[in-house]
Amino acid sequence: MKKNYLFTPGPTPIPHDALLAMAQPIDYHRSEESTALILDVLEKLKHVFQTEHDVLFLTSSGTGAMEGAVANLLCRGDKVIVIRSGKFGERWTEICEAYGINVIPIDIKWGDSVPPETVETQISENPDAKAVFATLCETSTGALHDIQSIAHITQQTPTLLVVDAVSALGADDLQMDNWGVDVVVSCSQKGLMTPPGLAFAALSSRAWEVTERSDLPKYYLDYRKAHQRGLEGSVPYTPAITLLAGLQIALNHICAEGIRNTISRHSMMASATRNAIKAIGLSLFATSPANTLTSIRLPDEIDGKMFVKMMREKHGITYAGGQGELSGKIVRIAHLGWMNENDVIVAISAFERGLADIGYDMPIGAGVTAVQEIFKK
Amino acid sequence: MKKNYLFTPGPTPIPHDALLAMAQPIDYHRSEESTALILDVLEKLKHVFQTEHDVLFLTSSGTGAMEGAVANLLCRGDKVIVIRSGKFGERWTEICEAYGINVIPIDIKWGDSVPPETVETQISENPDAKAVFATLCETSTGALHDIQSIAHITQQTPTLLVVDAVSALGADDLQMDNWGVDVVVSCSQKGLMTPPGLAFAALSSRAWEVTERSDLPKYYLDYRKAHQRGLEGSVPYTPAITLLAGLQIALNHICAEGIRNTISRHSMMASATRNAIKAIGLSLFATSPANTLTSIRLPDEIDGKMFVKMMREKHGITYAGGQGELSGKIVRIAHLGWMNENDVIVAISAFERGLADIGYDMPIGAGVTAVQEIFKK
Repeated sequence: MKKNYLFTPGPTPIPHDALLAMAQPIDYHRSEESTALILDVLEKLKHVFQTEHDVLFLTSSGTGAMEGAVANLLCRGDKVIVIRSGKFGERWTEICEAYGINVIPIDIKWGDSVPPETVETQISENPDAKAVFATLCETSTGALHDIQSIAHITQQTPTLLVVDAVSALGADDLQMDNWGVDVVVSCSQKGLMTPPGLAFAALSSRAWEVTERSDLPKYYLDYRKAHQRGLEGSVPYTPAITLLAGLQIALNHICAEGIRNTISRHSMMASATRNAIKAIGLSLFATSPANTLTSIRLPDEIDGKMFVKMMREKHGITYAGGQGELSGKIVRIAHLGWMNENDVIVAISAFERGLADIGYDMPIGAGVTAVQEIFKK
Repeated sequence: MKKNYLFTPGPTPIPHDALLAMAQPIDYHRSEESTALILDVLEKLKHVFQTEHDVLFLTSSGTGAMEGAVANLLCRGDKVIVIRSGKFGERWTEICEAYGINVIPIDIKWGDSVPPETVETQISENPDAKAVFATLCETSTGALHDIQSIAHITQQTPTLLVVDAVSALGADDLQMDNWGVDVVVSCSQKGLMTPPGLAFAALSSRAWEVTERSDLPKYYLDYRKAHQRGLEGSVPYTPAITLLAGLQIALNHICAEGIRNTISRHSMMASATRNAIKAIGLSLFATSPANTLTSIRLPDEIDGKMFVKMMREKHGITYAGGQGELSGKIVRIAHLGWMNENDVIVAISAFERGLADIGYDMPIGAGVTAVQEIFKK
């Protein structure tokens, strides 16, 4: 009896009740019921974003909200600082360059996290930089960046801090208001346990002020229009209304658990996974790993692409492989969204059996035992 | 026993099997199975678009694909001709103006359709116009534009013809290749019987050539990137994978019926609806009405907003009201997507009873009889 298990850092498994909410007959997006749905979702997202500011949504992938941050905040020829430590830091650069923005990169070795003092130095050398573009969890490496410390720096300058929390929202802590983050962007298919197709952004007051001066072209990704309509439970363009219905159910689960508990649960699952990987005798790829996912550096003798393919075909287990320069070299296991200790046990026990399948010498049972040791606490 | 019926021109009702396909456990969008899904959907869309050219998709509303057409085809300062006969013609103008494009408008009274010779005159007076932006069915008025005749004109010039077929694809005829249309954009939640969240575009060879010279900023809406990845069954950014699963089922229905038959069915439903409205004694708003929806001009004594609200609350029937300057003045009834003669009977019989509810003097039964007369043929 083959069963399928999804451990990719997006999309993540969807609760059954959310799946069924999306299978209900579709409703008109301008009905009173849809208005109430949109208002409810936007209110509950504030809890997840840990903010009192409004959250806006777009019908797009997370990348749409990332591009929106560039197109809505900046002006032609602006200078910005981009922290690049993986594929998604690079994406910030690509988007900025598509709009003719002058990018000062902070290049960090893949797997490492940016030292906050490096950001401080760059800002002091580039006081005219309009924004720092950062990543909470760099999904391609599993590294967590110290956004709290970076926000402490940017708050004392006119430079805005824009954070890609696409994969980490609801898994790694991000206290937008307490820490003083200016813009947070995220999407539906990660910690929010909903299919891909919805993206979100929340802006600080000073970030909203900056949007008034932006002269870059935008229409579909116009934050101000999405925000204004959202306040009325409406939208400028037809939204992915079935995904909103699923998101409402998923958000109910998070709000019932409480975002602080949700993050603690992810912290525990990540800790158990890391403990298991060490017990198996492998090493972690990220020096400062996130709660969102764990990246495992594979021994040279293991072909990561083959391993990931074999795990899916033989065991019904979908991990993510490496992207870009890490292709074949790492395996990424997400512990993200609708997951608990039993999912971690499945992910690790299957990983052990997969290693045994390919004849890799390791102490079978060591991984699951290490998971149990964390969870019994 | 209240039952709900959706007669809005998007979203439209979704077949049960497509709904259930979207309620299956979600899969990773980079799996072999998802690759096969994307390739299958893109191939079947060619049948609906009546083209041999590739179709690309974006995770967005139809407006995202409209903006994509502007951002991918044009250069800073370009001149274009826009046919404006309602809200969606106006949208083309707004998008172009957001990108600093010089718009030559052809303004047509709302409800009317553009005379093709007017387009011919404008092109001859503006031979440097890069494109004509047109609408197949102007959803805000229910008017159909003669795209075949307009394409006959543009084909003989270097000016491209870009058609918003957002609401009409699969309902009103649009023979992209036979007629020589350069760009067709559409989306999932109309004739394609799938929830909103996916948008599509197909480009002629000369349109693809023009995209190579475009210098407008774009990233998320980059047609070339979406096209290249799509050929491999892949995507540049996480797609709305559950909506693709639903779309595959919906497309199977259209391919089984055959697009020519699908259009004939819509033609029959539209004809029956128009016959009923005339039998009831009301008049059509559009001078050249589309198969997609029927717009009904309300007598001055009927408050359209109140009528639409009453129909939804009392009868569970959702029609669309008027937009913009037509608010309260028209009712729009869609016969679009997953509908047949029984849906038309429901839409018209409820309309009759609604008019009776508000004391409007009309011959009860005349509408449904007129529907029957068309369908018995």
